[in-house]
Amino acid sequence: MTQEPKIAYFTEDASVETVNARVSESTDARLQTVMASLVRHLHAFVKDVELTQAEWDIAIDFLTKTGQICDENRQEFILLSDVLGVSMLVDAINNRRPTGATENTVLGPFHVDGVPEYEMGANITQAGGRETCRFYGTVTDLDGNPVEGARIDVWSDSEDGFYDVQQPDIQPRNNNRGVFTTGPDGRYWFEGIKPVSYPIPDDGPVGKMLGKLGRHPYRPAHMHFIVSAEGFDPVTTHTFVAGDKYLTSDAVFGVKESLIAEFTPVENGETLWESNYDFVLHRSE
Amino acid sequence: MTQEPKIAYFTEDASVETVNARVSESTDARLQTVMASLVRHLHAFVKDVELTQAEWDIAIDFLTKTGQICDENRQEFILLSDVLGVSMLVDAINNRRPTGATENTVLGPFHVDGVPEYEMGANITQAGGRETCRFYGTVTDLDGNPVEGARIDVWSDSEDGFYDVQQPDIQPRNNNRGVFTTGPDGRYWFEGIKPVSYPIPDDGPVGKMLGKLGRHPYRPAHMHFIVSAEGFDPVTTHTFVAGDKYLTSDAVFGVKESLIAEFTPVENGETLWESNYDFVLHRSE
Ligand SMILES: [Cu+2]
Ligand SMILES: [Fe+3]
Ligand SMILES: [Fe+3]
Repeated sequence: MTQEPKIAYFTEDASVETVNARVSESTDARLQTVMASLVRHLHAFVKDVELTQAEWDIAIDFLTKTGQICDENRQEFILLSDVLGVSMLVDAINNRRPTGATENTVLGPFHVDGVPEYEMGANITQAGGRETCRFYGTVTDLDGNPVEGARIDVWSDSEDGFYDVQQPDIQPRNNNRGVFTTGPDGRYWFEGIKPVSYPIPDDGPVGKMLGKLGRHPYRPAHMHFIVSAEGFDPVTTHTFVAGDKYLTSDAVFGVKESLIAEFTPVENGETLWESNYDFVLHRSE
Repeated sequence: MTQEPKIAYFTEDASVETVNARVSESTDARLQTVMASLVRHLHAFVKDVELTQAEWDIAIDFLTKTGQICDENRQEFILLSDVLGVSMLVDAINNRRPTGATENTVLGPFHVDGVPEYEMGANITQAGGRETCRFYGTVTDLDGNPVEGARIDVWSDSEDGFYDVQQPDIQPRNNNRGVFTTGPDGRYWFEGIKPVSYPIPDDGPVGKMLGKLGRHPYRPAHMHFIVSAEGFDPVTTHTFVAGDKYLTSDAVFGVKESLIAEFTPVENGETLWESNYDFVLHRSE
């Protein structure tokens, strides 16, 4: 099963080669590439910092606890990936787009499928909506032509900073969620509330780690969007509330300059605020 | 709590700097060093292989399952560290010794405290010992002077390839374990059995990974030793049975050339085999 390794015995110097030589030549080529790189960088890290036995013990314990706090409602390893910037990096690498096309950001853990589809203009806030807000804008292609039939899937937290799924006994199902479809003019508009900043779950190993690093667990206020249309790259993104105090310190590094949206007070309108954001889709290759 | 980061928004190019700039300046210096290096190598890995979203999903799922299979009797993250060569690397970095001093290898998960102390010559095998073996040798310093009062803590698997703690209902407690102390001549000798090769637990995520990489889960047959004496670096090591078919493919990379010991058949002796290994201790600094 295993071919004769080129370097038989482990040495500190040749540690990477020793481990990678063990992989069978018949292993899936992509898996070989990924594992070889993982081993190379992992060993380089251990060598760079000359990790002590006590630090290794801490790492094993941390990883174990991170796995053990996970359940169907909580995914602490995703949180870890988020706060280390890995989720955003994977997102960036897999969603490179030409200048002018709307940028992606992380999906986050609170997206839900099977949300009601509303007529344009509907209010997605069923409960707890004082800071009412009208969201509107256009969906166009890179040349500015309106995109008809674009599906706009939106969700935000409540005025208390919780998603409906985090408070199934307090908030009505699908509170602050909705799906809309653009007409021939590519325009969208709906009502909801101005989102508020909220902390990621910080009572587990990842929260403890953030504490030791002197980092806070907050995300700047944002409205989630998935905008998709046939023939175009779907965009999974947020708009961030301009001026939010956590914009430059988002715990999960989700903010991009192009995603910051103005939220403007409205005098004598149907809502207290409004926010305009135009989405630009890039044709899929 | 968090200082103003130097680079505010995440970009693919500056991903490492963006994440590391978030760490508070008042964070423990060593923790800063370790985390900065971890983030650098982790991001370099993701960029090198251009990790896909689907591969990231697999990684999150793998880590979660690895944590969740852990309990008081099983530590799958240590196993993961072992099969990736990380445990041996940490061991190597933290136990560099001058040429001539006995080399370390991994402790392994089956060491037990509070094992009976025997007189030199005692038999540590209480049950299941057909391939009887006499172990003997000397404990000296680097100049060849005998070390008196050296504590020799030994343990091996049974003839079926299991440690006593893995079979509490089958093997007597402390089967194939013992502690001995050298006299003024620095010599040691005791009876046990010739150890046999055994697989690391391979019914979990790590075993599945090994399978995908075409790697077997076996360790070559070995006797565990911890040799310690006042004024000397303690040595945690094994002697490996010369000629074992897994010597060059130990699943955890524990073998070093200097640790391979001959096991010689004995004619008309008290045991069927004997094995000589001399330990050389290095004075602690
Ligand atoms: Cu690296
Ligand atoms: Fe969110
Ligand atoms: Fe062992």
